[in-house]
Amino acid sequence: MDHLSRLKRFERTLDEKGLDGFAVTHPANLRYLCGYTGSNGLLLFLAGRRVLFTDGRYTQQAREEVEGARRVIAKGPLLNDAAKLIGKLTSPTVGFEADHTAVAAAEQMRDLVSRRRTWKPTSGLIMRQRMLKDADELRTVADAVELGAAVYGEALKAVRPGVRESEVAGKLEYAARQAGADGMSFETIVAAGKRSALPHGRASSQPIPRSGFVVVDSGVILRGYCSDMTRTLHMGHVSRDGRRWYKAVLEAQLAGIAAVAPGKTAAEVDRAARQVLQKAGLDRYFTHSTGHGVGLEIHEPPRIAKAQAQRLEPGMVITIEPGIYVPGKCGIRIEDMVVVTTSGCRVLTPVTKELIEL
Amino acid sequence: MDHLSRLKRFERTLDEKGLDGFAVTHPANLRYLCGYTGSNGLLLFLAGRRVLFTDGRYTQQAREEVEGARRVIAKGPLLNDAAKLIGKLTSPTVGFEADHTAVAAAEQMRDLVSRRRTWKPTSGLIMRQRMLKDADELRTVADAVELGAAVYGEALKAVRPGVRESEVAGKLEYAARQAGADGMSFETIVAAGKRSALPHGRASSQPIPRSGFVVVDSGVILRGYCSDMTRTLHMGHVSRDGRRWYKAVLEAQLAGIAAVAPGKTAAEVDRAARQVLQKAGLDRYFTHSTGHGVGLEIHEPPRIAKAQAQRLEPGMVITIEPGIYVPGKCGIRIEDMVVVTTSGCRVLTPVTKELIEL
Repeated sequence: MDHLSRLKRFERTLDEKGLDGFAVTHPANLRYLCGYTGSNGLLLFLAGRRVLFTDGRYTQQAREEVEGARRVIAKGPLLNDAAKLIGKLTSPTVGFEADHTAVAAAEQMRDLVSRRRTWKPTSGLIMRQRMLKDADELRTVADAVELGAAVYGEALKAVRPGVRESEVAGKLEYAARQAGADGMSFETIVAAGKRSALPHGRASSQPIPRSGFVVVDSGVILRGYCSDMTRTLHMGHVSRDGRRWYKAVLEAQLAGIAAVAPGKTAAEVDRAARQVLQKAGLDRYFTHSTGHGVGLEIHEPPRIAKAQAQRLEPGMVITIEPGIYVPGKCGIRIEDMVVVTTSGCRVLTPVTKELIEL
Repeated sequence: MDHLSRLKRFERTLDEKGLDGFAVTHPANLRYLCGYTGSNGLLLFLAGRRVLFTDGRYTQQAREEVEGARRVIAKGPLLNDAAKLIGKLTSPTVGFEADHTAVAAAEQMRDLVSRRRTWKPTSGLIMRQRMLKDADELRTVADAVELGAAVYGEALKAVRPGVRESEVAGKLEYAARQAGADGMSFETIVAAGKRSALPHGRASSQPIPRSGFVVVDSGVILRGYCSDMTRTLHMGHVSRDGRRWYKAVLEAQLAGIAAVAPGKTAAEVDRAARQVLQKAGLDRYFTHSTGHGVGLEIHEPPRIAKAQAQRLEPGMVITIEPGIYVPGKCGIRIEDMVVVTTSGCRVLTPVTKELIEL
């Protein structure tokens, strides 16, 4: 990953915003900017200098990972050491991540430097940069999606009546580990029969029934980047209603994908998917948004939802995942990851969306 | 779990603090107080009423899980609905979790209600209650520790030269799934040979060498509660130095455990472990604190570290985990979970700490 370019680009943002410095503590932002993956870190930009503070547990790891910043191993809270550096400047304005800094931590920041105006809450400055994936990131995301698809294929072999949902999830997760994933990007969802009506039905000890839909929603993390995909299978022969519902969700998903293009708003994409379900009389069962950005975090901007005015740009990576949930009956969701291109989008997820009856 | 007692106890705290209401959004606190496990929720205490706000994805789940609070499915941001309720009272003071609420979210809170003084940042009010585990919790934690120990035993079978660290971690995690764990409480650490000198050496694709220490640090989540244990093995015959180091770490760990008793401070426990390593001339390699609380979260108060004046009380569950990390050579860590009793402590982790040579 080309951390130096990212650091320099972010420093241009600081210039534009009139900030003399910036304190980064959100783990995904630390990794994005300088490669550091430890659980405790503070990257301080200050008057052209960059310092990554961490603690003694991460001495060796920081040496191996951090690019473009000096490393300092702090003895106590990282903020104390950062505040000392800041205190050396006359009256700097130092930004911090208002979306990722707790109120209590911000209070400590203010206590540690004498002038209240030194710290300036900012929102989304790094995320705006992260939303547009660079070439390294797009390659890694594509690799993660490929891996996620492969382990889904492994899990599929385990799906049969009587097998517990958690057994299927376990097979999938084990395959991910064996294939070199860092881990899972969220708790694997395997929701069979009536449980498929739970949009977030984490794999339970319930056995898969002989009949009904099975929603499998899973993702891996590969070299830090997340994948996310959902497919819905059917155990046994699907009813006429079931087939109609599946077809409507698939058409909504394809309409969502077809609407993705640079310049379009996130709301327009959401509407494209939602309208298909509306025409089928099923929109009241579509109880969530159409998608979300994916990258170092499983849920990133942009949100693909109603009233989201964010315009899509080439390099954004998003999910398109409409679903319907008929309480007490069943649920169906189909989800791909796509990357916005200069002319439209490219679907990354290489798995069929034909209805599979097992 | 007896959520009603917990809710009532917290309401007594609100009375004592002169708060008319309180907004809870931190997932572990939501689960602790009312049983809700979804990713998006806001539990509002207000003038004797309790309302859990969530979104359409969690309608059915909230119905099944939430105890002691009315459920409201919000159409937009949960805070909007909560603010409307708050706006109906004349001039309430409503507390919020300053440690878990981002600066940006707190700003939104203030914007949504007219008077700035309505929202009051508070710190640790729920955590203080959570630190002292009730009988249900102690049973669940003990079950989680038992399960964590059992799956460690499974993983141990896989440890041999040439096997990748990630293969060992994968076996352990698969065993956890099969045994009914909700998931892992943190990224499994398997750090062999020179990598054992990384205190947070997540399992990598490196094969286990023929000789040297292997640190395995893992934990499961069972019914929401975390386990945490570390053992250090040795591949092949251990050198005299290696044996001396291992003995020093084990003695430090036993000294830490022996120091745990109600009324003792966390700093005293840390010192007891640290002094043993000091006498052995190894304290410069002990680069982290001695332990931490464990419960619904893998890292909770109290911190068992230098300068921590927090006194131990019966019902606290903590880890005792001194370790040494000799850069470029090796690392050794030994970790148990213990519960503070009325007279001292009870070690929960049922796994030998004798040095095993494989």
